[in-house]
Amino acid sequence: MAESKDKNYEYVSGVNPVHSLVTINAGRRKIYKIFLSRRRKKDLKVQRIIAEAVKQNIDIEESEPTRFDNTFHNGTSSQGIYAMVSPYNYSDLNDFLDKKVGKKSGSKLRLIILDGVTDVGNFGSIIRNCHAFGFEGIIIPKRRSAAVNKRVSNISAGALEEVKIFREVNITITIKALKRRGFWIYGTTLDINPQVKNLDEINFSFPMALILGSEDKGISRLVSSNCDIMISIKLSGRMQSLNVSVASGIILYKVQEQIERRI
Amino acid sequence: MAESKDKNYEYVSGVNPVHSLVTINAGRRKIYKIFLSRRRKKDLKVQRIIAEAVKQNIDIEESEPTRFDNTFHNGTSSQGIYAMVSPYNYSDLNDFLDKKVGKKSGSKLRLIILDGVTDVGNFGSIIRNCHAFGFEGIIIPKRRSAAVNKRVSNISAGALEEVKIFREVNITITIKALKRRGFWIYGTTLDINPQVKNLDEINFSFPMALILGSEDKGISRLVSSNCDIMISIKLSGRMQSLNVSVASGIILYKVQEQIERRI
Repeated sequence: MAESKDKNYEYVSGVNPVHSLVTINAGRRKIYKIFLSRRRKKDLKVQRIIAEAVKQNIDIEESEPTRFDNTFHNGTSSQGIYAMVSPYNYSDLNDFLDKKVGKKSGSKLRLIILDGVTDVGNFGSIIRNCHAFGFEGIIIPKRRSAAVNKRVSNISAGALEEVKIFREVNITITIKALKRRGFWIYGTTLDINPQVKNLDEINFSFPMALILGSEDKGISRLVSSNCDIMISIKLSGRMQSLNVSVASGIILYKVQEQIERRI
Repeated sequence: MAESKDKNYEYVSGVNPVHSLVTINAGRRKIYKIFLSRRRKKDLKVQRIIAEAVKQNIDIEESEPTRFDNTFHNGTSSQGIYAMVSPYNYSDLNDFLDKKVGKKSGSKLRLIILDGVTDVGNFGSIIRNCHAFGFEGIIIPKRRSAAVNKRVSNISAGALEEVKIFREVNITITIKALKRRGFWIYGTTLDINPQVKNLDEINFSFPMALILGSEDKGISRLVSSNCDIMISIKLSGRMQSLNVSVASGIILYKVQEQIERRI
């Protein structure tokens, strides 16, 4: 599939991503058109996409499998379906918090803050973890951060359309604003010192924001000084190192486990 | 850095991977030569590498940073150091089990079996998780599997030299052989049915082998019919999907947590 050079549209490909796009559309994108290979028409999920598209008056262009593959496949698997959409729209954090904080629906509100995660693979994978474990959104800084693009969308395997992404200028100011709204701020670190707690000693409080840093530098000093609690995952290997998306998966799983045990 | 076309040597690059290579060398590779940029000579870990290389009579070729970068950097970061080594040697599973099973040192023995994991990124990341959480080795099938290569080595961030990789022809036969040696076999699945246990209900027994399948198909029917217990990670998202390296990180963490609580 040819990557668009025009900034007014992008492509989202794959059955799950397109399905999430037409049903959820967290990025509030305009869907210009859906392209479909006829070989996928019998697929149950594709039929649901078609029904939803018809309801929303979205154009569907069907092609014969041979033509579809020849024109657009180009090495990356589109799974026989993709959508042409307006660029990703980041969500507004204040609007979101106004709606959620203090409401019953927001009583277990969980967000992630990325501080210096520049690898798009990790970003996409963290989005996927978020959705898997009930975190509702990710705050990223405008500078020095991976941003939403087609690869992030693919790696998130559809979760990008389910999780809200907020882009803020200054993470420290954002953290302070979250604290004023009653958020508990959890930072992550590989350091072990008396101020740092082991993941399995922590009793999480809500609403919460979990800050993840870059793999080599961790979260910045200014940001970590604004955390209520610093978390470390105990590793038994000789090398103290864990991929940031794996680390986030483990912490998010533990948070979810605690919520379920309390119910 | 130019990729070798000659199959008699490969390159391992980066401070941690080269450090693990000279100190552990799980792949039992012959180290022909270490190439070093002078700008890294003051680095403590690089000094440890140099000391170890001198002890083992390994050649070190130092270059001025400009020359080193120009010749070898080529977009991928070698961190100013890399080694020219013989190709990766897989370990022998029977030898390993003879040494470990029934011995006190092997009383908490943990292995991973990959059944159809073809993505090298996931393979490298699973190796890293193994090392982080005290799993000693990974069994992969000879066919339809990611194998050890330079990318796997890079993604593992040095863990490849700490964890043993075994390559077996038939995974089902291997599982039966492990069972005869007293191993508990744990499979993973996204299905939810009465035969499948939730991760947080499981009391792990040792020695154990954890089987991970491909993201789209999971583990094969024949392999899963040979598992003692099937594990599922409870996900709260609308889409039941988790990256296999993240899933493995969560399960390995939980196993490690249980071992520590029992001590």
